[in-house]
Amino acid sequence: MIQWNSFYAARAQGDYQNLVSTLADSIVQMAGGFPDERVFPGAEALEAMQSLYEQAGPALMQYAGPIGYEPLRQWVAERAGGSTALSADHVLLTHGAQQGIDLIARMLLDPGDTVIVEAPTFHGALWVFQSHGARILSVPLEQDGMDVSCLKQMLADLARTNQLPKFIYTIPTFHNPTGYTTSLERRVAMLEICSTFGVPIVEDLPYSDIWYDAPPLPSYLELSDHSVSVIQLGTFSKTLCPAFRVGWMIGDESFIAKTIHFKHISDTCSSLLMQRTAHELCSNGFLERNVSKARNLYRQKRDALMEALARHPIEGASCSRPGGGFFAWLTLPAGMSATVLKKHALEAGVAVAASPMFYEEEGRDHACRITFSCPQAAEIETGVGRLATAMNRLIQQI
Amino acid sequence: MIQWNSFYAARAQGDYQNLVSTLADSIVQMAGGFPDERVFPGAEALEAMQSLYEQAGPALMQYAGPIGYEPLRQWVAERAGGSTALSADHVLLTHGAQQGIDLIARMLLDPGDTVIVEAPTFHGALWVFQSHGARILSVPLEQDGMDVSCLKQMLADLARTNQLPKFIYTIPTFHNPTGYTTSLERRVAMLEICSTFGVPIVEDLPYSDIWYDAPPLPSYLELSDHSVSVIQLGTFSKTLCPAFRVGWMIGDESFIAKTIHFKHISDTCSSLLMQRTAHELCSNGFLERNVSKARNLYRQKRDALMEALARHPIEGASCSRPGGGFFAWLTLPAGMSATVLKKHALEAGVAVAASPMFYEEEGRDHACRITFSCPQAAEIETGVGRLATAMNRLIQQI
Repeated sequence: MIQWNSFYAARAQGDYQNLVSTLADSIVQMAGGFPDERVFPGAEALEAMQSLYEQAGPALMQYAGPIGYEPLRQWVAERAGGSTALSADHVLLTHGAQQGIDLIARMLLDPGDTVIVEAPTFHGALWVFQSHGARILSVPLEQDGMDVSCLKQMLADLARTNQLPKFIYTIPTFHNPTGYTTSLERRVAMLEICSTFGVPIVEDLPYSDIWYDAPPLPSYLELSDHSVSVIQLGTFSKTLCPAFRVGWMIGDESFIAKTIHFKHISDTCSSLLMQRTAHELCSNGFLERNVSKARNLYRQKRDALMEALARHPIEGASCSRPGGGFFAWLTLPAGMSATVLKKHALEAGVAVAASPMFYEEEGRDHACRITFSCPQAAEIETGVGRLATAMNRLIQQI
Repeated sequence: MIQWNSFYAARAQGDYQNLVSTLADSIVQMAGGFPDERVFPGAEALEAMQSLYEQAGPALMQYAGPIGYEPLRQWVAERAGGSTALSADHVLLTHGAQQGIDLIARMLLDPGDTVIVEAPTFHGALWVFQSHGARILSVPLEQDGMDVSCLKQMLADLARTNQLPKFIYTIPTFHNPTGYTTSLERRVAMLEICSTFGVPIVEDLPYSDIWYDAPPLPSYLELSDHSVSVIQLGTFSKTLCPAFRVGWMIGDESFIAKTIHFKHISDTCSSLLMQRTAHELCSNGFLERNVSKARNLYRQKRDALMEALARHPIEGASCSRPGGGFFAWLTLPAGMSATVLKKHALEAGVAVAASPMFYEEEGRDHACRITFSCPQAAEIETGVGRLATAMNRLIQQI
């Protein structure tokens, strides 16, 4: 029998953790970014499939083209809006937004190429860029967006050595893991900087429909006005359900046309049945109703989290108040390790995500991502109570 | 606006053709490897989903773990058989068999690594290995399998320079594009050679259930007996339908455990709804009935192709007689270009695939892949008639 270790590619040498573990029912799940199943289009999805099957017959279950179902691409193009008139040719349907990140990396990253990310950022993006051997540089993320003076200085330094990044990856709206939203002022500043240095922006927008206090700010795609190339990623996983596995990528036509090849070699195509079902739910009015329902449901959960945190104050800790999305960012009291807290919290009956996984650099062990999308309001209260107990015990030991 | 050309990674510099084009209804489709829609589980799939939804509720539409639905992995393990007792831990569910090829490449290939393939081979595999910067070496494929003495010599040469391949990629049963099947004798010889040199085998088996004359020979996984590491790929795209996008990879537990990370970064997970629906159709007896139906249907088409070719003989051409699968390999008269024939055939009203796309090396323009899975028997007769007309015209010009 072959010892596989000697066969693995460089990218597979790491010792990867399987993050997806099943939690006991007694544990409050505030780690994984699961949507609430009450927003899923159960009966409506099955009805849509039945109706599509009556119209289209078994052709519904055939291979699709790798670019995806044209009417849904058209729908995505129309909804994205912006200064440029978008058409279906600007849209490729992906197998969820994660595949969009992967396809962009395949299109743009050679080993050693530079990518700029926010610190912290989505671990699923970090892992893709790492697997491509990219040089990942981090710009501190503040409550109102990337530290733009730091970004400007970094780009100026990189330009001098001809190492400008292939792109900047950002989650400007209801950021994962922090819940922060980049202000309009910072968006404009970012575009100006990217225009100056000729750097594209990859804008990941899985959560922008799920807003609580005010509709989301204009996206980079809407603001860019031809001066900066923007690739935008989106998904139905939060507004319909993850099991459709339907996301999208919006970009220049030439970029999208070339990406088809990489979608093709990744998995031939996505499911026509799932794409058409998603399209049916977009066309028949279900999606808009469901997004309203989701906003109300998740807003209550965000409020429940804020109230629970107020009822269980921890000296030296502070938490973001997200205006949308699934996540809040709890900065721990000085000296407290998130990795240690995560273990104690799990023993106390609540799962949270520790900050190191959201950073490229080592040692950023000072915060936790709290997911409020999955547990019900009463469970959020229970979970925060347990987390506070674990933190108060740890404070004694600092 | 950014000129994207200066941003593309090396792997994206090529000028890729979009193979998936819509043909006019008047064209007989013998190019793309589409299954016949009459074997798709239309109503049965919708019933299975309805029944699953009644049992499981909206949880059916939640994120799944990247490794896939455990009972279906167990089913795949049991069905694969072989000398080793396989369990669910040996199986990862993929988004079709193409994703399996891509995941294996991510796991094993650094740029410059050697891979050995059959000549000709499946273009979807070639494209993946090319995109990883692999050094692709081809061993001639004969009617009864790879030229084993050529393979042995190649491995001996590679061993001397310490460049043994990371794996040999083979489609031993009802090969794509030729329809050939590797004989038992050659399988045993291949295993002996791979054992001697310590080279793993990647065995792609999308068609083995679709046999016409006799059940398929034992797979490499069944024959390997621990002396050679075998990774086997399979799919429900031919036995149920492509739109489920459910395939699998079977391998050593340590290999599968590490592959989870690369599945995760590729697309988070596949659809739990589709995996459970496929499992339901495997468990309730539909799959076995459907595979019998598919064998009969496609056997009639294979026979129709053979009869049509006999009715339209072309001097100097010869065609394989596949024992299963979707494809036959038409070797053209000496001096005839497949690329030229493909164009003339399309004008005459039949689409076929020209041989160059199935070879790593340039200039192999001597044959066509004829797909008989998609057209009905009468269309096969029409298509072959048109192809013969185009060939007879070209013969005048040689």
